[in-house]
Amino acid sequence: MGSLTYKLIKKDGKARRGEITTKHGTIQTPVFMPVGTAATVKAVKPETLKENGAEIILGNTYHLFLRPGADIVREAGGLHKFMNWDRPILTDSGGFQVFSLGDLRKITEEGVEFASFIDGSRHMLGPESSIEVQQALGSDIMMAFDECAPYPADREYVLPSMERTTRWLARCKDAWTNRENQALFGIMQGGMYLDLREKSARDIVDMDLPGYSIGGLSVGEPKELMCEVLDECVDFLPEEKPRYLMGVGTPDYLFEGVARGVDMFDCVLPTRLARHGAAFTHSGQINIKNAKFKRDFTPLDPECDCYVCRNYSRAYLNHLFRSGEILSHMLLSEHNIHFLIKTMEKIRKSIEEDRFEEYKEKFYRSYGYM
Amino acid sequence: MGSLTYKLIKKDGKARRGEITTKHGTIQTPVFMPVGTAATVKAVKPETLKENGAEIILGNTYHLFLRPGADIVREAGGLHKFMNWDRPILTDSGGFQVFSLGDLRKITEEGVEFASFIDGSRHMLGPESSIEVQQALGSDIMMAFDECAPYPADREYVLPSMERTTRWLARCKDAWTNRENQALFGIMQGGMYLDLREKSARDIVDMDLPGYSIGGLSVGEPKELMCEVLDECVDFLPEEKPRYLMGVGTPDYLFEGVARGVDMFDCVLPTRLARHGAAFTHSGQINIKNAKFKRDFTPLDPECDCYVCRNYSRAYLNHLFRSGEILSHMLLSEHNIHFLIKTMEKIRKSIEEDRFEEYKEKFYRSYGYM
Repeated sequence: MGSLTYKLIKKDGKARRGEITTKHGTIQTPVFMPVGTAATVKAVKPETLKENGAEIILGNTYHLFLRPGADIVREAGGLHKFMNWDRPILTDSGGFQVFSLGDLRKITEEGVEFASFIDGSRHMLGPESSIEVQQALGSDIMMAFDECAPYPADREYVLPSMERTTRWLARCKDAWTNRENQALFGIMQGGMYLDLREKSARDIVDMDLPGYSIGGLSVGEPKELMCEVLDECVDFLPEEKPRYLMGVGTPDYLFEGVARGVDMFDCVLPTRLARHGAAFTHSGQINIKNAKFKRDFTPLDPECDCYVCRNYSRAYLNHLFRSGEILSHMLLSEHNIHFLIKTMEKIRKSIEEDRFEEYKEKFYRSYGYM
Repeated sequence: MGSLTYKLIKKDGKARRGEITTKHGTIQTPVFMPVGTAATVKAVKPETLKENGAEIILGNTYHLFLRPGADIVREAGGLHKFMNWDRPILTDSGGFQVFSLGDLRKITEEGVEFASFIDGSRHMLGPESSIEVQQALGSDIMMAFDECAPYPADREYVLPSMERTTRWLARCKDAWTNRENQALFGIMQGGMYLDLREKSARDIVDMDLPGYSIGGLSVGEPKELMCEVLDECVDFLPEEKPRYLMGVGTPDYLFEGVARGVDMFDCVLPTRLARHGAAFTHSGQINIKNAKFKRDFTPLDPECDCYVCRNYSRAYLNHLFRSGEILSHMLLSEHNIHFLIKTMEKIRKSIEEDRFEEYKEKFYRSYGYM
């Protein structure tokens, strides 16, 4: 595996402290990855991401495939150069997006035909073309083309879908030629059915890939159910490879994932919440547009040491948001990303010091989860 | 004048190289001042403004008076602290905005009653209240409350309007109490009528203020006419005080103003253009959304050394703009502000080296003005 190595440094219960090394640098795990859908983490400069400790970001194949197109990114010298980000990038496969377009798409064994969200034009993505696009983008970690089954879904739906995802993974592996520079992760599916999860895991682990991802969770099921499934299915994955729980980003889900041995997380939540005026704080989520903040001259989160909390008041952020100022999105996005990245940093430290559960409880109490 | 000093360092023809010192620092003149209407230069962090050489910014009294309100900014510790900007700030008087609201306003000798752009509620601004608001904001340079006559306007309109502006200036001066920390500039009006300009200038200069501004130009008149009026009326102002041409910001207008002895300029153009995809370059203005830039991997302006031109391609900026990404506004705004500030820096150097006219010609040729 020339493209990626994983080193397990320390365990505290099931929680893992590790390190992933790629051609663009090393990532401390567990890690939260900000999402840069269209070759930008919305409203945040790459330098600002670095200042806030981001070690890896995510790009969306579906969006980049449609705009600007893989050929333009390739001509630009790859996604890193195109968007001015020299640290690792993970790209998803586009599978999640083409499937979630519902009745606008047509699924065959070959792949998925779908309508562009930009102009309705018809396109096709499948295992080979997804890998081709991701190789043009030049991401450090590529995801296999899969179907993420919805919740709820009958066993009769989930089983053939999961088996097709596995067949598609074999084709992704065949299409994966740039093995020295780019890693390929397989994705476990199987819905909420543990025996299907086990079957999926066994089949994808057999393909001996650089890492594995847990797909099809956090798709609308109750938190307890997600935790139950996670309890079992992380154990189906090999200890010596990184494990990525896709699309998970609320603070409690990060803790629950880490507690069960997950190493990587991504979510659009910090930037999406920001654009709606919402911010993570150590005492829970707040919305800055609330009138009570008009004359509140304290920082967004008094326990936070980010650029935003060091330099601006809630009153100012309230004013910016109510005035429709872009700076509001910029500052809230930066704070929210900082919050998740720093929380993950503290999680890593707590694992190193064998007090992960203690830190989790402290965080939950302060945040208002318990 | 404890609040502001002006030092004339060097002249090249009528062009002046000088220095303005305020309580929040020194400004090299001639200077371009980015506009931060609602306590933020749109889509640009204060630190980014500094990195690009901004020494002073402008705030709009009309907007801040209505939202968040002068009391909130005062409670925050003033506009500098509220918006995290520790260099000089100039505030306008709100006069321009309340007058330009047209039939929604009622003018009396007392002041102007107007409807809020936010919710239509009725408010009053006049000389005393404008100064009161500006003193609450704590700007380094306050502008007198004036009427900027439209173009075209009859002499019969302009004369009484100009005389009232002068009477209002006397009342502004009386209301100006924080003289140790804040300077007050008088505003010359008089439309395109040189004798009225001269009368206005004589009356306001008699009041011996820290600086003077030329209002009522660049309001829709042809460029030649503006230059003609400027030719004469700058000379009505004292050599030992700074001169500010309000609302002027296209590159050629900056050069024409400097050539006639103006020291200070402001304009929303760099950030407003940016939000429409337009950028200043050394070979003229371009619009990044143009399809020809889709595969153009050169910088926005190959002759520019700003952060944006060092790190991003036209193809990337085209992609961001077409994708509706906030980063597009952030990067184009930064570049455009950099462009005007650096152009002014080069203008200052050319004055120091007695080659302002030569630099002006070179710039015009390259930009396409001639």
